[in-house]
Amino acid sequence: MSRKIDLPTAAEMQKFHHQSQRHNFWSKISMPQRLSLGFLTVITVGAFLLMLPFSYHGNIGHTFMDGLFTATSAASVTGLTVVDTAQHWTIFGQIVIMILVEIGALGFMSFSVLLFTATRRQMDLKSKMMVQEVYNLESLYDTRVVFGYVIKLSLIIQTIGALLLAPFFMHDFGWKRGMFYAIFHAISAFGNSGFSILPKGTASYNNQPWVLLIIAALIVAGSLGFLVWRDLLLYRATHHLTLHSKLALVMTSALIIGGWLLFELTEHNIHSAQSISPINRLFDTLFMSISYRTAGFAQFSFDTMSSATVLLTMMLMYIGGTPGSTAGGIKTTTLGVLILQTRAALRGKKDVVFSHRRLSHENIVRALLLVFVSLVFLGILSFLLMLTQEHAQNYGLEYVIFEVVSAFATTGLTLGLTPHLTTFGQIIIMLAMFIGRVGIYTVMFSILNVHDDKAPFRYPEESVIIG
Amino acid sequence: MSRKIDLPTAAEMQKFHHQSQRHNFWSKISMPQRLSLGFLTVITVGAFLLMLPFSYHGNIGHTFMDGLFTATSAASVTGLTVVDTAQHWTIFGQIVIMILVEIGALGFMSFSVLLFTATRRQMDLKSKMMVQEVYNLESLYDTRVVFGYVIKLSLIIQTIGALLLAPFFMHDFGWKRGMFYAIFHAISAFGNSGFSILPKGTASYNNQPWVLLIIAALIVAGSLGFLVWRDLLLYRATHHLTLHSKLALVMTSALIIGGWLLFELTEHNIHSAQSISPINRLFDTLFMSISYRTAGFAQFSFDTMSSATVLLTMMLMYIGGTPGSTAGGIKTTTLGVLILQTRAALRGKKDVVFSHRRLSHENIVRALLLVFVSLVFLGILSFLLMLTQEHAQNYGLEYVIFEVVSAFATTGLTLGLTPHLTTFGQIIIMLAMFIGRVGIYTVMFSILNVHDDKAPFRYPEESVIIG
Ligand SMILES: [K+]
Ligand SMILES: [K+]
Repeated sequence: MSRKIDLPTAAEMQKFHHQSQRHNFWSKISMPQRLSLGFLTVITVGAFLLMLPFSYHGNIGHTFMDGLFTATSAASVTGLTVVDTAQHWTIFGQIVIMILVEIGALGFMSFSVLLFTATRRQMDLKSKMMVQEVYNLESLYDTRVVFGYVIKLSLIIQTIGALLLAPFFMHDFGWKRGMFYAIFHAISAFGNSGFSILPKGTASYNNQPWVLLIIAALIVAGSLGFLVWRDLLLYRATHHLTLHSKLALVMTSALIIGGWLLFELTEHNIHSAQSISPINRLFDTLFMSISYRTAGFAQFSFDTMSSATVLLTMMLMYIGGTPGSTAGGIKTTTLGVLILQTRAALRGKKDVVFSHRRLSHENIVRALLLVFVSLVFLGILSFLLMLTQEHAQNYGLEYVIFEVVSAFATTGLTLGLTPHLTTFGQIIIMLAMFIGRVGIYTVMFSILNVHDDKAPFRYPEESVIIG
Repeated sequence: MSRKIDLPTAAEMQKFHHQSQRHNFWSKISMPQRLSLGFLTVITVGAFLLMLPFSYHGNIGHTFMDGLFTATSAASVTGLTVVDTAQHWTIFGQIVIMILVEIGALGFMSFSVLLFTATRRQMDLKSKMMVQEVYNLESLYDTRVVFGYVIKLSLIIQTIGALLLAPFFMHDFGWKRGMFYAIFHAISAFGNSGFSILPKGTASYNNQPWVLLIIAALIVAGSLGFLVWRDLLLYRATHHLTLHSKLALVMTSALIIGGWLLFELTEHNIHSAQSISPINRLFDTLFMSISYRTAGFAQFSFDTMSSATVLLTMMLMYIGGTPGSTAGGIKTTTLGVLILQTRAALRGKKDVVFSHRRLSHENIVRALLLVFVSLVFLGILSFLLMLTQEHAQNYGLEYVIFEVVSAFATTGLTLGLTPHLTTFGQIIIMLAMFIGRVGIYTVMFSILNVHDDKAPFRYPEESVIIG
């Protein structure tokens, strides 16, 4: 009863792209083209709305690039900002940002599910019928059905999150603003966007672990992705998790706990957190471990942090969340495959095995190549910024590299460079955010399947999603 | 008439390791163990010699770690120094360093040739006989023969280099010191070690392109490696280059020219080079492109350079030279394979082809995995340094990462951290130099061959060396 997640061949993609029989414009363009076009449309509309005079406070300087950059950052759920979200925008502007985040998060979630599942070559008939009987969740070929499920699941989780956050925010800001803050942050956290309209961001609640834990739970829920959620929700019926879900869950847990321990190590003496009790500080580093990898809610100023924390944060951002989620980066499953391949290689094993399944070569090459291609991409963008941003020269490489990694991984943390970017610099960072959201799939697409020799005994093959 | 360079399987390595019938200690340990033990012995003897009172000038503080670090740096042909090579050591000490460099360079060159060629599975009989007839260079199974060829080739090149350098140095320093300087720098440059005993290093000759060009030629000659040289020397007889040599030559040329153009771009206004004529400056950036990737002779102080130059230097160091040479890094052929794989992937091609040859999957996974493993290694070492080096906190991440990359790639450039390292920091850097020289092979070893499916038509398969 395996529900395999196979990545599509070029021929299958072709077939899938042309399965629609309507011969209009929309049916003629490929999935990645639809994704990019839709994304660009959302950004353009968002930038237009953010240019309206009642979107921003009139007494503050406002340029076209402020709107475009913010719309790109919101729709790509990155969270990098050239203007302060709480100060610069009116309630209307903040609602526009919130809606852009929601469209970006749910749109990419749905599209990536479609990309990963809709074209799989075969489906185990038994599991197909069983799943159909129980939850009717199998028909992930259909765009509307997928969008429906993703939206339903997301709204349920976001509603629970908003209801849990509301009491705290209403206590501090009155019921009207408190309710709005609760909805905004539930959407922002589940979408892993990192936008906050609290006066000091989530750092306002450094001393209230419950608020941080609710936001952290929303971040994790969003970063797991729809396919893992589907597996978890169906588990009572199927008693089975796909390899993808298993690896994603193992890696996510390991990264959260590992990051927590390492942040405890690097920030054992957080200078800016002297007013926080030791136990609350433990929750703060847990929150850092969860937020800094995908969502990008800043907890402490990086000025007060050690270089080791900065390096650790960069690494976590680069890894990111799980495919089919609202998070970016090279993805947890990619790192998992690389670790498994490395272990196998160091043991002289030919097959890369996880949980009694053998990973395909295609899968492994995809994962490895993603690291190489993303590094080249990050290197080129960093180099271009370094050549053009005079301001960055005063701070050093890390300001620029951190910014580029953060944009590419759509994490949205910064060492402080964003507001000082020139227009060219903003365009580079917008490009990083755009490609960080869209491009990995596009690159991955063109990689073809590789077939293995049949050996006397091998574990059955199954794939996890890369990128 | 293909002389394939296949990488050994585990079984072949086993057989190779045990081919000696003498049952003494030496015959019982494997190649990588021999390499590591030999390396450790050379370092230990070198450190002991550098501790002798007539090795260093008595009026300067001298510690055991100074000797150990310098011996490690010299034997691994890295060139990182905690004390000034020209000021700290007597002529005797400098001769010890020179001999350590020569043993390190030629020893590793020979060993890697043995590792790469001695165990190849099959040898085309025709080419075997032909080569044997012409130059008798085929019998690369035999340790003594390989060492003999490597030493002969190296001494010829180094002698030519020393004779070309001598007039310049004798003019400036008198014939005795001038001759010693010429020999020292010919060995140091061919060995890609980066040690210099000139008052201001190679920067003393910023205005004399001939000296820089001779040193650059020696660096390139050393960084190509013995296998490429063998191919080039046999070309008149065979009219054939191995895929390895072709890729190495293409990548080396591209990196030298590309690095040159980019350094021209990043340093179009070298502040510390105002006294240099425009044409001489062109030669200086060419020298930078060649030296900064493998040898590590510093040309200008990094203080006066842009961040873009620092980033570019880090990337070039990380890439390094060609396998079977005196240079480090992930190697030119590794980068070549990755670029070819990326191009194939982006074009949706299944086979990765270069010069009418298809690269094996084993080859590609090796190359990709090397990048991942080396990055994890660099990340862990940087993190450890960041946690422990208080001094580095004042400068930022780039000081530490640059240092670790430089040590791992055995390049030996520094932003200035080396003399400020604590003992723990020195141990970390020594570890990086040691593993940078020895470890890549050891890791690569354990990766097994992967067989491909037979397709109706495919180019014949051939491998290039990775790592
Ligand atoms: K984010
Ligand atoms: K060197």
